[in-house]
Amino acid sequence: MREKRIVEVLRGRMTDRVPIWLMRQAGRYLPEYRALRAQAKDFLDFCYRPALATEATLQPLRRYDLDAAIVFSDILVVPHALGVRVEFREGEGPVLETVTSEADLTRLSVRKVAERLEPVYRTIAAVRTELDQEKALIGFAGSPWTLAVYMLEGRSGVGGLEAKAAAIGKAAFVGRLIEVLVEAVVEHLDRQIVAGAEVVQLFDSWAGVLDAAGFERLVIEPTRAIVQALKRRHPEVPVIGFPRGAGTGCARYAVLTGVDGLSIDSQIRAAWAREHLGEVRALQGNLDNMWLREGGGAMLARADEILGQLGGRPLIFNLGHGVLPETRPEHVTALVEHVHAWRA
Amino acid sequence: MREKRIVEVLRGRMTDRVPIWLMRQAGRYLPEYRALRAQAKDFLDFCYRPALATEATLQPLRRYDLDAAIVFSDILVVPHALGVRVEFREGEGPVLETVTSEADLTRLSVRKVAERLEPVYRTIAAVRTELDQEKALIGFAGSPWTLAVYMLEGRSGVGGLEAKAAAIGKAAFVGRLIEVLVEAVVEHLDRQIVAGAEVVQLFDSWAGVLDAAGFERLVIEPTRAIVQALKRRHPEVPVIGFPRGAGTGCARYAVLTGVDGLSIDSQIRAAWAREHLGEVRALQGNLDNMWLREGGGAMLARADEILGQLGGRPLIFNLGHGVLPETRPEHVTALVEHVHAWRA
Repeated sequence: MREKRIVEVLRGRMTDRVPIWLMRQAGRYLPEYRALRAQAKDFLDFCYRPALATEATLQPLRRYDLDAAIVFSDILVVPHALGVRVEFREGEGPVLETVTSEADLTRLSVRKVAERLEPVYRTIAAVRTELDQEKALIGFAGSPWTLAVYMLEGRSGVGGLEAKAAAIGKAAFVGRLIEVLVEAVVEHLDRQIVAGAEVVQLFDSWAGVLDAAGFERLVIEPTRAIVQALKRRHPEVPVIGFPRGAGTGCARYAVLTGVDGLSIDSQIRAAWAREHLGEVRALQGNLDNMWLREGGGAMLARADEILGQLGGRPLIFNLGHGVLPETRPEHVTALVEHVHAWRA
Repeated sequence: MREKRIVEVLRGRMTDRVPIWLMRQAGRYLPEYRALRAQAKDFLDFCYRPALATEATLQPLRRYDLDAAIVFSDILVVPHALGVRVEFREGEGPVLETVTSEADLTRLSVRKVAERLEPVYRTIAAVRTELDQEKALIGFAGSPWTLAVYMLEGRSGVGGLEAKAAAIGKAAFVGRLIEVLVEAVVEHLDRQIVAGAEVVQLFDSWAGVLDAAGFERLVIEPTRAIVQALKRRHPEVPVIGFPRGAGTGCARYAVLTGVDGLSIDSQIRAAWAREHLGEVRALQGNLDNMWLREGGGAMLARADEILGQLGGRPLIFNLGHGVLPETRPEHVTALVEHVHAWRA
């Protein structure tokens, strides 16, 4: 049996068409998602009910000819499974119990992560049986640094500055927190793969706040540790890394972490990526989500610029960041068709 | 008479020591600044009273052997002088009347900018007479895109996303707003130079939110227009550009805008800068302000990494972003001494 297009591309091979999926392809911009969401009592309950999460995962695949499904879940399930109180408040974003002392750290329980996240693995298994055989199923986790930012700051509004201060002023403590998170993330991704995920992606949404030295220590090193651990257990499963906002750091990340695919945000010029990110087997990205929201010829012209620069080598078309809630679903239809029709 | 060190460096020449100044070197971390600030009725009043602004400009030079003073002012004086209502609310940041329609645009009056900003030029003239002849005096302005973000969004909390949406959905309108701002910024910088500024810096704090295409159109092009206009009037005055968060875009910015100096934020690895930013005469930066807040040996070690990579060519030592309010003044003393003692 032929491998799925996205897997092929992540092995560094070209396929008959450029595959595409979109970060947050399941989400509030879809009316059927909003209806489904209303059935859960809160966002975590939604993530932990396999029947609902399976349906949310599959909804965009029913509408669009996307090349992959990504399990419907959230990066904060890992801190939650470690024993941290996590609450999603409407219109306010997540609020977490902070982890700022050695005592807090001792209470985190890596041992229980896989058991507590069993509903995620059941969702993956259910999606895999329903999903078209041509489509890849992607599992994911937040990267240690990004999870640490939420755990150190308690809410996302602080913008990573407090976490960065801790990474400098309490470096040993933050180092230990990162170690715990590396272990938990490996466990969570391993179980997702066992359940049926064929590709995994690491989201490092807060990679951009660190200085170059911090990026090396808190983004590159933990990511490399995770990739190595996963490759020992599942050498055949490709890993995509997404160090959002990493700018020039992407080049080192591509070389040093061992990821198969590098997802690049919209700030990175496609021409620059072509020239400087050749070390990685495949690139993913990098249309600005604002163009998808805008739609029309302007969106397709931007997509063509990216395809023109990067489509001649292994590329997974995607956004530079998640689909915005105000996006009209028809824009996704147009984009998917356009990317699939494109030829190098 | 020998040129001032910072000017020398911006001409691409090495000097006897690496010169240093710090963004927000005049500011809340200094007790004498807080005392002075209490004499003004609000922040704009503070900026517009030459006696106070002159003293604020000179305060850090009294404490530290810095190589430059930067006129105490704010980037939002330009929208204010154009006729936009600007208010600085305690603990909340600036709030502006938004400029979102053609009618709003018509009300902006470039003609009055220089007249309304006369107090800034008086401050510069006063500082120049008091400032040690060895020290350079830097004038500055916000870059058009960054000013446009504030004018389109009204407050800084929205994080540039609304402005980016406007740049895409109302491209022609935003283009006209940028044109007005180019003209106003040229006028304001020209007058600062006439009053005695020997170097000018353009702050583009919101450069990082744009995608690669937007960066080209809204950061690089207007900056080039400003640099060209200034060079026609004052060919001998160096211009420093600071496209904060621009990541890989810095390389094109360095080549295409014509700036003499490029200020780089902390995210950029010094080794990368050495390799890829050779087109510009001088670099400036790039110590993370969090290290200055931390102080001690760790701060000096980071400074040494930067000096080791970049000190062998023309460099103005600075931070990657402004001094944080919680910084202890002694840390600045230690940093300035350390940088001055360093030899390639």
